[in-house]
Amino acid sequence: MTELSLTRATLEARLRQIGVDRYHDKHPFHHRLHSGHCTMEEVQAWVINRWYYQSRIPMKDAAFLSRCTDPDLRRIWRSRIKDHDGGEHEGGGIRRWLKLAEGVGLDPDYVASGRGVMPATRFAVEAYIRFVRDEPLIAAMAASLTEMFAPAIHTARIEGLLAHYSFANPTTVSYFRHRLGEAPKDVAFTLNWVLDRALTRADQEAALGALTFKTEVLWAQLDALWHGYVAGNIPPGAWRPGEGQL
Amino acid sequence: MTELSLTRATLEARLRQIGVDRYHDKHPFHHRLHSGHCTMEEVQAWVINRWYYQSRIPMKDAAFLSRCTDPDLRRIWRSRIKDHDGGEHEGGGIRRWLKLAEGVGLDPDYVASGRGVMPATRFAVEAYIRFVRDEPLIAAMAASLTEMFAPAIHTARIEGLLAHYSFANPTTVSYFRHRLGEAPKDVAFTLNWVLDRALTRADQEAALGALTFKTEVLWAQLDALWHGYVAGNIPPGAWRPGEGQL
Repeated sequence: MTELSLTRATLEARLRQIGVDRYHDKHPFHHRLHSGHCTMEEVQAWVINRWYYQSRIPMKDAAFLSRCTDPDLRRIWRSRIKDHDGGEHEGGGIRRWLKLAEGVGLDPDYVASGRGVMPATRFAVEAYIRFVRDEPLIAAMAASLTEMFAPAIHTARIEGLLAHYSFANPTTVSYFRHRLGEAPKDVAFTLNWVLDRALTRADQEAALGALTFKTEVLWAQLDALWHGYVAGNIPPGAWRPGEGQL
Repeated sequence: MTELSLTRATLEARLRQIGVDRYHDKHPFHHRLHSGHCTMEEVQAWVINRWYYQSRIPMKDAAFLSRCTDPDLRRIWRSRIKDHDGGEHEGGGIRRWLKLAEGVGLDPDYVASGRGVMPATRFAVEAYIRFVRDEPLIAAMAASLTEMFAPAIHTARIEGLLAHYSFANPTTVSYFRHRLGEAPKDVAFTLNWVLDRALTRADQEAALGALTFKTEVLWAQLDALWHGYVAGNIPPGAWRPGEGQL
């Protein structure tokens, strides 16, 4: 027997529940970071590895455009690439992230080289790009809906960093402030798109599965970070404290 | 024995020679089109099939961005997507192509649906997207250098269409006029990039091979068009004269 479709309200509630249950604001590393308990080495390790994720987001969105046959949808989605890459001179989110790298005492060229990123970080991020390029369109779009949960974590992060770390100032936290303004427009469009079009139970489950997958992509990065730099099991080839300093 | 590298001047000359030998301005279909010998059905078939190529160019450029790890290069390359897709309201090259479709008596919604495009057209275009996503970066970039040869064919086309066909007017030929302004900036950047970085003979041969491949992508589309609509062997499922009219 075919399962009944969810109502629009139920689908939205289930999507939001994934954030409650699984978004990486629940991860112990973020509690440690935002409450001021991270060492500077742990902060640096986070900045280096999270840089890899940030730097691949425009490639993820380009992968989406490369499989999107609807020019209207492409025209709207394209702004995401601009948000992260920015213009030729000013740059975007990626350059703001490198300001944070400098602020925590890392050579931004070292961070931007990607040397020292943990293999587990790369594997998680590359799985996301592959997913967005190859999976059904609704799933590829729904995976981005972790942005529904991002303003809360960004707000907590800005407050936590400013309260607890001397490196935190308006320049170093500007990446997060910008995302507070950028993400909501993307979320509103994409959530409506998914709710409007995921009408069969199969498509609804695909959307729910995609958002779950994306929370896994984020969580796995923090697990690897914790194991490597909090528990002190740095994998071969990954950044070691003291490398890549300004 | 390893083959010697070509000088910069020789590499550029060989790239340009590919245009002389193999660019699709040499194809009999273009002679027929520009000299006013095409029937309206042949023009319509060309517009329908060439639409498919145009409509996939932003996806091709997004495929490039999706594999390009250099944010500076991404920031420059991104303008190509904008040139073709345009903004949410005005649109870009693709909407201008649909003006041409209307001008030749086709329902633009039919053309934009992609129904009726010949399988051979799709296969050639999809091979190009795949090439740009997966082949080495220099090859992916060099494949775009057919734009070196495009201004001449666009100029000839604008003149030929205006001289010979009653549907031709500033609106219907605006796609080609815009490309005259857009393509040269892309060519200058990309040609220099390839000449600066293709320093080993292996990379130089990869660039030459990529440009040759791209001329094949263009030529194969016209061969299929000729076989289908000039010689009169329309494949199953492809557009038949009379369908999709305004």
